[in-house]
Amino acid sequence: MVKEIMRNLLVRMAYDGTAYHGWQVQKNAVTVQQTLQDAMEKVFEARPDVIGCSRTDAGVHARDFCFNFRTDSKIGCENLVLALNARLPEDIAVLHCTEVPENFHARYDVLYKEYIYQIYSSPVRNPFLFKRALHYTYPLKIDLMNRAAQAYLGSHDFSAFCATGSNVKGTVRTVTLSEVTQQGDCAVFRVRANGFLYNMVRIMAGTLLYVSRGKIDAGDVGGIIRSLDRCKAGPTLPPHGLYLNRVDYGEIGGQ
Amino acid sequence: MVKEIMRNLLVRMAYDGTAYHGWQVQKNAVTVQQTLQDAMEKVFEARPDVIGCSRTDAGVHARDFCFNFRTDSKIGCENLVLALNARLPEDIAVLHCTEVPENFHARYDVLYKEYIYQIYSSPVRNPFLFKRALHYTYPLKIDLMNRAAQAYLGSHDFSAFCATGSNVKGTVRTVTLSEVTQQGDCAVFRVRANGFLYNMVRIMAGTLLYVSRGKIDAGDVGGIIRSLDRCKAGPTLPPHGLYLNRVDYGEIGGQ
Repeated sequence: MVKEIMRNLLVRMAYDGTAYHGWQVQKNAVTVQQTLQDAMEKVFEARPDVIGCSRTDAGVHARDFCFNFRTDSKIGCENLVLALNARLPEDIAVLHCTEVPENFHARYDVLYKEYIYQIYSSPVRNPFLFKRALHYTYPLKIDLMNRAAQAYLGSHDFSAFCATGSNVKGTVRTVTLSEVTQQGDCAVFRVRANGFLYNMVRIMAGTLLYVSRGKIDAGDVGGIIRSLDRCKAGPTLPPHGLYLNRVDYGEIGGQ
Repeated sequence: MVKEIMRNLLVRMAYDGTAYHGWQVQKNAVTVQQTLQDAMEKVFEARPDVIGCSRTDAGVHARDFCFNFRTDSKIGCENLVLALNARLPEDIAVLHCTEVPENFHARYDVLYKEYIYQIYSSPVRNPFLFKRALHYTYPLKIDLMNRAAQAYLGSHDFSAFCATGSNVKGTVRTVTLSEVTQQGDCAVFRVRANGFLYNMVRIMAGTLLYVSRGKIDAGDVGGIIRSLDRCKAGPTLPPHGLYLNRVDYGEIGGQ
């Protein structure tokens, strides 16, 4: 039997997560992965396995979600982008496709991921940010939040910033960027790390919100990290302010 | 009989028009006005008449839509904003309320209105701009479009930029701002005038798109205006790129 020539393809996509129960296939719930595989089945007349760069929760958005899959199809990368977009709903878009080495793995080979958490601070809601940003009715102390966010930088055991009950082997992660800035109408918390624990960004953002409210002192965030105690950190903010913003694989998979 | 003390209130609101068949109440279709009056009925236990600053078409958005209404209720303006927002869906927000003179009329007293038309130019769609901007898959010549947009400035008979079959008394309008700029990922056509004919902004934007595509020469736009011929102008672009951006009443009703 002649061995088929299998290509390994890395695909970058964006989606508005509002209508989906996250990335991962589930029983009895529509997910991004399932919707994507439905579209792939129409293109390939087969249903390839896909390896996502991470799971995202229900309602979380992505500006740059990555997955890889193997195929013996000869369809070119540019045409694959067009073919998938034609079969996907408007709230999901395939942005880019590139061939990667045979052993490339979209989850294991991540160098860093970057998330943003977006907060719209105004007495009145903004209809154009519904399900796109957390609406917070009080003013935010951006400078204070940004100062507190510096404590996240470096390698730490982030157990205090991990949903209780989650079961992971290691809880040390290295954060290489952590900042809060004003962008248009929103306060944006941007954080980049080699990996994230479950709900880590949403708890980090909740802690910064508590700093702004005066419920946590900006100087205490380092101590909260060292406490390894989930109860000392701030609340888990809702999913709809969270965006997976960038996934980096170094030289491979550049856009 | 003692005459009731009636106040005349001007309210500014924003809405994502995607789910609505425009502003104006219609039979068998959900409109912004109807949704608003439903909320008002809960607040006032009566259904006040409201006078909108203009009609908007199905799918058109507003960052600043104004209406006025008369009430003998003693509710304060700030509380009215809160009370209405609590009873309106998330895609409509009341931004501001102020008392205006007895004879103030939200349509007749407009000094100028400003619209924007937003075009997302990229080979691939953006899930976060679905129903919020026209997706156009080719590059846009922003400078050329901006140069062509200058022809709209001044007082002209805009019959060539009015939907055929519409029945208006006068067709002369005075445009005081007309420009095309790049804003983030989008090309934005911004136009300010003392009034607009039916579909005028969408036809103006369609004409500028034809200029970018080379189907209309930038220098010919003045001639198209003077022709008074709808057939010479560009197409009517779809409603979802259009936003009522600002309504100005001068000293009255400032935000």
